[in-house]
Amino acid sequence: MREVAVIGVGSTVFGKFPKRLVKDMGSDAVWAAVEDAGISPKDIQVAYAATSFGANVVGERILSVAGISGIEVNNVENACAGGANAFRGAWWSVASGQYDVALAVGVESMTTTIAGNLITPEPNDLNGDLGNSAPAHFAMSMRRHMEIYGTTPEQFAQVSVKNHRNGCLNPYSQYKKELTTEEILSSRIIADPITLLQCCPNTDGASAAILVPLSMVKKYTGKKPVTVTASVMTMGGFEHNWKELAVSGMSIKASKNAYEIAGCGPEDIDICECHDAFTYCEIAHYEELGLCPVGEGGRFVMEGKADIDGKVAVNPSGGLLSRGHPVAATGVMQIAEIVWQLRGEAGERQVPKARIGLAHTLGGEVATLESGTVAIHILKT
Amino acid sequence: MREVAVIGVGSTVFGKFPKRLVKDMGSDAVWAAVEDAGISPKDIQVAYAATSFGANVVGERILSVAGISGIEVNNVENACAGGANAFRGAWWSVASGQYDVALAVGVESMTTTIAGNLITPEPNDLNGDLGNSAPAHFAMSMRRHMEIYGTTPEQFAQVSVKNHRNGCLNPYSQYKKELTTEEILSSRIIADPITLLQCCPNTDGASAAILVPLSMVKKYTGKKPVTVTASVMTMGGFEHNWKELAVSGMSIKASKNAYEIAGCGPEDIDICECHDAFTYCEIAHYEELGLCPVGEGGRFVMEGKADIDGKVAVNPSGGLLSRGHPVAATGVMQIAEIVWQLRGEAGERQVPKARIGLAHTLGGEVATLESGTVAIHILKT
Repeated sequence: MREVAVIGVGSTVFGKFPKRLVKDMGSDAVWAAVEDAGISPKDIQVAYAATSFGANVVGERILSVAGISGIEVNNVENACAGGANAFRGAWWSVASGQYDVALAVGVESMTTTIAGNLITPEPNDLNGDLGNSAPAHFAMSMRRHMEIYGTTPEQFAQVSVKNHRNGCLNPYSQYKKELTTEEILSSRIIADPITLLQCCPNTDGASAAILVPLSMVKKYTGKKPVTVTASVMTMGGFEHNWKELAVSGMSIKASKNAYEIAGCGPEDIDICECHDAFTYCEIAHYEELGLCPVGEGGRFVMEGKADIDGKVAVNPSGGLLSRGHPVAATGVMQIAEIVWQLRGEAGERQVPKARIGLAHTLGGEVATLESGTVAIHILKT
Repeated sequence: MREVAVIGVGSTVFGKFPKRLVKDMGSDAVWAAVEDAGISPKDIQVAYAATSFGANVVGERILSVAGISGIEVNNVENACAGGANAFRGAWWSVASGQYDVALAVGVESMTTTIAGNLITPEPNDLNGDLGNSAPAHFAMSMRRHMEIYGTTPEQFAQVSVKNHRNGCLNPYSQYKKELTTEEILSSRIIADPITLLQCCPNTDGASAAILVPLSMVKKYTGKKPVTVTASVMTMGGFEHNWKELAVSGMSIKASKNAYEIAGCGPEDIDICECHDAFTYCEIAHYEELGLCPVGEGGRFVMEGKADIDGKVAVNPSGGLLSRGHPVAATGVMQIAEIVWQLRGEAGERQVPKARIGLAHTLGGEVATLESGTVAIHILKT
């Protein structure tokens, strides 16, 4: 197996752009990554393109606009983990020696009518009939976390305070507005105890990354390479700890596996982009990823340990809550953020002395949420 | 790179089953393949699941029903080439040494409302505005083939005669009804010169395959292994021969590449499952795949050379035209048919002394058709 480096990343600014086409946003991200890497688009040998709602054959559409053809194109879908799935595919194609230059791109247009259906339930979907949509599902877990560990509404709100503060520093962020705890807690209830300002928004955008073998970096670019030290993607299982519900066994297992592969531990992570679809999620993810002990996530964020200058910078980009969540683009954007941070190019939101970063996404629809997929990548410079 | 064998295949019967759910059809196909391989579902280490219209996170949904969890799941989409894309992913995961037991599954429910949109055009789709849908596109190519090479309506119709005759012999076929040339040519015009009975139908169904390293076959099964000798998947390019239009440079290039990898030529192919979405397509594919010289496809089929007992049995399953075309299932069903044929288990439609088979799919939407994707697999016993 070859060591793999990310030599270029790029993204559109995230936001609501109903007039922008999926293929055009995708192409913009691809070109930004190509320019960042300093390669020619003709160097790309394989593409992994992710979308959940964008269009069929999304990779071929994007590459046609980008002026790239004649290569292998894989379109992947894995709900919120789609971008990470694309990145993993690109990574393995290089790690395994199949290709030398791979592209991962994720794109979503959630404001257009094509996206009207979002994740379609199946006709006999019991969860749908019960109203067990994603906010309801996570609201139950949040409530359980409060009950078992005494986590407070203010602690959950602090995740949104922090991530919106970070988003103000990120030129790619959908929202650039600081929020107070009171604003967050008094915004309207979506699924009690989740309020509006504790939910990630619908977002349009695209992000891309270029991967090559570490040994060939100098052939392609003068930039500082960022190495992929672990890639783990796994469907959760029926072993989920339903007795507890407050944290997910799926992410715990996947992160242990990833740390083992990377030869590091949670104490080594300088920056973590995790799947803060709701404030509760980020607190659970601190615990699942081992950034703090289970049950202590509320205190962790309240004490500033997840701040840009804290113990580990969690979602310095603003995360899904503020930077936005164009479903299948998110996983690739997390990689882009980590690459910018590890290169020291993150401007006002730069994490001091960042050397190791972890990206974590979680995908599924509610009926299969615990049999959904978690993807974790660890990168280092 | 390790040699890879297919040790199990399975499928639902193809047809119109609007009450059957995607996940249930998919699970049925997975179990049929697992039983055919004689393995335990717990042996499966990675899954590649394809659908174009089925649902998001289709692999996780299928595996949840099938009782499989805790493994890596990749969902892929590549229009009509989706099933082949899933098979290629599964193949590479084994060939590269990443996993030992891989599952490929393709599924489509085209009669349900979820499938209402089919391949959605983008808002600025010039081809859509011009009425250049798939039948119109292929009708133009068909007309051009008639003009340049003198191919006759009767020769095109013969593809449908042959494939419906074959479909009558296939228990998995959507249609089991012989058709006459006159019935085919007098059926209503869809896009002149394409008539209704020269078009593949909408179909529901699912197919699956299990792959392992050739060196480990005996550990898992007593069945005769079928080896994958070439896997090629590539997006077409702007190099398409638009001057001619009668045949596609994309399939010509991909098949040459596949023959080179497999170390064989078109003269060695005993059975070919190709993408007969319209009768014209099969004739063009004879020529593109080198089964006969360019321009001679009409005579080739008329002289019985593509019959089950002909020079090369093309679509002995009945093909897309008669067996049916559940978009992302088709590529996996082609593999299943070839495996059954190479093992001598194809019953009434058995091709005598079949040793080498070729599967060919073509995916895209019209705007990107020539920048769509072609996938070719060659298998041998």
